[in-house]
Amino acid sequence: MTVTEKIEALRALMASEGLAAYIVPSNDPHASEYMAAHWQEMQWLSGFSGEAGTVVVTMTEAKLFTDSRYYLQAEQQLAGTGIDLMRADDIDCPSINEWIVKALAAQMDDENNMDEVLVGVNPEMWSVNDYAALEDEMADDCLGVKSIDLIRPLWKEGRPSVPQDVFYEYEEKYAGESVASKLTTIREHMAAKKADSMVVSMLDEIAWLLNIRGKDVECTPVVIAYVVLEMDKVTLFVAPEKVDAKTSAYLRREGIELRAYEEVFAYISQLDGTILYDGTKVNEALYEAMRTDSINAQSPIQVVKAHKNAVEIEGERKAMLQDSIALTQFFMWLESDATRQEMAAGKVTEWDLMEKLHSFRLLRENFTDESFGTIAGYKGNGAIVHYAASKENCATVYPEGMLLLDSGAQYLDGTTDITRTVWLGGEIPAQAKRDYTYVLKGHLALSMVRFPRGTRGNQLDALAKQYMWQAGITFGHGTGHGMGHFLGDHEGPQNIRRDNNPTVLEVGHVCSNEPGIYRTGEWGIRTENIFTVIPCPQTAEATTEDEWLTWETLTLCFYDTRLIDMSLMTEQEIRWINDYHKRVYDLTAPLLTADEAAWLAQKCKAL
Amino acid sequence: MTVTEKIEALRALMASEGLAAYIVPSNDPHASEYMAAHWQEMQWLSGFSGEAGTVVVTMTEAKLFTDSRYYLQAEQQLAGTGIDLMRADDIDCPSINEWIVKALAAQMDDENNMDEVLVGVNPEMWSVNDYAALEDEMADDCLGVKSIDLIRPLWKEGRPSVPQDVFYEYEEKYAGESVASKLTTIREHMAAKKADSMVVSMLDEIAWLLNIRGKDVECTPVVIAYVVLEMDKVTLFVAPEKVDAKTSAYLRREGIELRAYEEVFAYISQLDGTILYDGTKVNEALYEAMRTDSINAQSPIQVVKAHKNAVEIEGERKAMLQDSIALTQFFMWLESDATRQEMAAGKVTEWDLMEKLHSFRLLRENFTDESFGTIAGYKGNGAIVHYAASKENCATVYPEGMLLLDSGAQYLDGTTDITRTVWLGGEIPAQAKRDYTYVLKGHLALSMVRFPRGTRGNQLDALAKQYMWQAGITFGHGTGHGMGHFLGDHEGPQNIRRDNNPTVLEVGHVCSNEPGIYRTGEWGIRTENIFTVIPCPQTAEATTEDEWLTWETLTLCFYDTRLIDMSLMTEQEIRWINDYHKRVYDLTAPLLTADEAAWLAQKCKAL
Repeated sequence: MTVTEKIEALRALMASEGLAAYIVPSNDPHASEYMAAHWQEMQWLSGFSGEAGTVVVTMTEAKLFTDSRYYLQAEQQLAGTGIDLMRADDIDCPSINEWIVKALAAQMDDENNMDEVLVGVNPEMWSVNDYAALEDEMADDCLGVKSIDLIRPLWKEGRPSVPQDVFYEYEEKYAGESVASKLTTIREHMAAKKADSMVVSMLDEIAWLLNIRGKDVECTPVVIAYVVLEMDKVTLFVAPEKVDAKTSAYLRREGIELRAYEEVFAYISQLDGTILYDGTKVNEALYEAMRTDSINAQSPIQVVKAHKNAVEIEGERKAMLQDSIALTQFFMWLESDATRQEMAAGKVTEWDLMEKLHSFRLLRENFTDESFGTIAGYKGNGAIVHYAASKENCATVYPEGMLLLDSGAQYLDGTTDITRTVWLGGEIPAQAKRDYTYVLKGHLALSMVRFPRGTRGNQLDALAKQYMWQAGITFGHGTGHGMGHFLGDHEGPQNIRRDNNPTVLEVGHVCSNEPGIYRTGEWGIRTENIFTVIPCPQTAEATTEDEWLTWETLTLCFYDTRLIDMSLMTEQEIRWINDYHKRVYDLTAPLLTADEAAWLAQKCKAL
Repeated sequence: MTVTEKIEALRALMASEGLAAYIVPSNDPHASEYMAAHWQEMQWLSGFSGEAGTVVVTMTEAKLFTDSRYYLQAEQQLAGTGIDLMRADDIDCPSINEWIVKALAAQMDDENNMDEVLVGVNPEMWSVNDYAALEDEMADDCLGVKSIDLIRPLWKEGRPSVPQDVFYEYEEKYAGESVASKLTTIREHMAAKKADSMVVSMLDEIAWLLNIRGKDVECTPVVIAYVVLEMDKVTLFVAPEKVDAKTSAYLRREGIELRAYEEVFAYISQLDGTILYDGTKVNEALYEAMRTDSINAQSPIQVVKAHKNAVEIEGERKAMLQDSIALTQFFMWLESDATRQEMAAGKVTEWDLMEKLHSFRLLRENFTDESFGTIAGYKGNGAIVHYAASKENCATVYPEGMLLLDSGAQYLDGTTDITRTVWLGGEIPAQAKRDYTYVLKGHLALSMVRFPRGTRGNQLDALAKQYMWQAGITFGHGTGHGMGHFLGDHEGPQNIRRDNNPTVLEVGHVCSNEPGIYRTGEWGIRTENIFTVIPCPQTAEATTEDEWLTWETLTLCFYDTRLIDMSLMTEQEIRWINDYHKRVYDLTAPLLTADEAAWLAQKCKAL
């Protein structure tokens, strides 16, 4: 079917179901950041292959709402489909709901009838809270929402199946805590909320809770499944094909019952007592299956999982060390005469850099995958915050100017995520040095801060921005996101952002520290480490009984000191960098060849 | 009646009304910070004269809950009354509601009856939201709340009347905006919320809206009244005795209708349409009078009033200059040989300092009152954050050690609030200098910060704490409160605190900037200026279209530079202080005697 034919077929179904509009977002039933092909309904319907977008179809119009990073791609891919591009980041672009209300208002006037005008959505693709918000907004304008999957009947041919890869036990030597112990803790949280059962749909929560990992989703070692946790029972809903003999034995040993993936709905509908679910994540279809009392509250798994245990943190340190080796080798390759000659000859692209870095990581112990698609942004491309080079469409990299490189990996021991910005050659503009130094000073202020227990990430955010603010510069993305342990690169509930997140930073929380400056058409600069909250002793100067916390930086990789404007640096900052560089060298050098170690020694030379 | 007799009389009334408990908080019907004597029900009932406390009476027990600053006073004043002191700041102290639930649970078991057990409160003394929260919490334990005033029938003899002082027009030359213009703006906000009327009970909102001021309440020039604002009508409910001929003419000119204070309830009950009210401030009795639809939302007056206009800001500058004269004279007196000899002779107390400072302010142009009770905390008393010396109970001040002085004034032009910490003599301990300098550096970081429009106060809070945090020191109070214009010293919605206040800082917002360090038994150090948000131009280095804001410091008074540990100061900080001291001198000196100016010149000498 062509896109036009698909839209027409959808309209026919809409008509027979009495729907005036249908919304197809880029979601999956598990609120995942990375989605299996099976759930790429938006992409299938529209032909637009970007990761984020929402298609809205009425009887007379079809629109794709997407953000600025996809404008060009969407324009090209939508040409001739009859779907119009809605540039969601433009100031004059209505929100999806505003557009629907306006489009249907005209129709309501025309028809002048009393029938309810309905908007259809697939309840599996909407969180309970988002669905409720949609209902509320539509109700304000006398529109109804109908929960119905109209894509399934249309998308039969060629639809990729839900991934059927086998999954495996994630051994306690990596996880640091037994399933039994985790179940006990989570059941205590459920009991405190007077819940008898909990529906778990987030894939990283399931992987953490049951100490399992899989290969179903790119960049995140999760298993597509649901879990229903009861006080005396835990049931994993997963395709039987995914369970081999070894995993089956493991699950039996842990007392985890198995049912088919689709059976979760029927199972939920027969639950008694009170069901706990996190309405920000659990999908509407699961909620509609519930036939008993329920409590919509933050998932206790999310909260507990965010406090990494000692084994997880030690694993993170191992993963960071492996990453340090790969990064040293990559940057040494990048600066080598041979590579610079290739670059000068116009033979190296951003894509080549991404592949080269991957090739070094591939050789590292316990490496399994990247933790997200590498961002290699050369010169002006570095200023595009969500820039993603493709093999076909990327810049040639010459031995001059700025390169921003944001990458990460999954190791069995843990997850990494690091950004370094380096200078490839030529004279460094004074503004480039200042920008780099404002970013670095903010990054260091956050690394060095001591704070009393009870502090939230949004209280610390301005510390990373204060120096660039004084220069009249800011950036729009978060300063730090939480990170999983051999799980998602982005994980809540903690983060470091301006938003009013109520989560308090606690010992064992892992976050990124990544301020940046983006100078359109010139360069992007971001400096990112992963760090974790640790306790620190009271000082002799203390005046209160407060407990104090600070950060331990886990990432191991030198900064490009050529880019530092030393006139802006304090002694304390220089001391921190020197100590850090010494640690990077001392830990990494023993695992390198003599040549590599000598090269790294130069990079880690004291300022 | 003795306190014991009052409690017994209250219990008799409770019995006849079927109440198991009665709560008497220290509130008034207008959610005021300073209360007229007429509403001091808690103090009348208990004999405890502190400003904050709540009495709870059951048939067998009576408790006074108050915070740590009043423990000693309450213990003394409650002796022999039969009322027990509950130390609310102690970790093991139950909350008021917890205590009630526990006290009544026993009774419910004993009686074993099915009648609802009721807790009584005077609805005029509870905001709608607090009353609803009380109901919710009580309902969890099957207790009901009854809205009834049991103090009025008991407290007849000797009850002070509601203040009957005349009030006056606050001329537009001070207010900067006509009543007509204010009414138009607020009505636009009401229309946006689809409200037909608004009930206004906050005294500062009424004073601002109608450009009136009075003398009803200590430290705040407000008029005890209610307002009902309709689309075509504005009605002021106020005691007729308070309206003299001149004010009457003014109100008539502005089209403001007058009714008696008590008539507000009957008036509200006959309103049609939709009533807007701010449930955080409007009392439950007003709400119970409503007979039509209502919307509980933040008061638009609060939001609009917080954006000071150019005339108000210019008035603040004038008030600050008057304050600067008085402060210069006071500190010059404090350092004079004569005063130091008096001090050495043990003849000067904290109370004397408060009176002396008052005497200098009394002479200033347009001075009307203090804006709050002066805090003069000598040595260890400075470390008690809410310390209030009384004439009978205060420390003798010697010419040595640290003095914290937090004071403020009401001038017709505007309100002031300033804290300076000064060294009275002797060798300054290194720790005292470090503490003073950590505080000062935080205060300066906040004064100097540039920030993009859209920033909230809680994002800036850590900037004021970062230096003391690195030394392992923090403080518990807010870093900055909003301030009124010839109105309350504390005014929302903006502030600078760790709490998740959603209010964004806007041009014209006025705040205090007052970090502190409190070393129990040794000294308290706080440095406080008032500043206001102003726009600042984009820099040449800007990378985005953001609009930028910064602070203009309004307060004019030197810092005690003897207390600065210069080794901790940056060049930028020193430059800021030198510029500020030059400004303080240049503006103040022309209004001083030659001797005073010479003395101030010394204090403002460049570092």
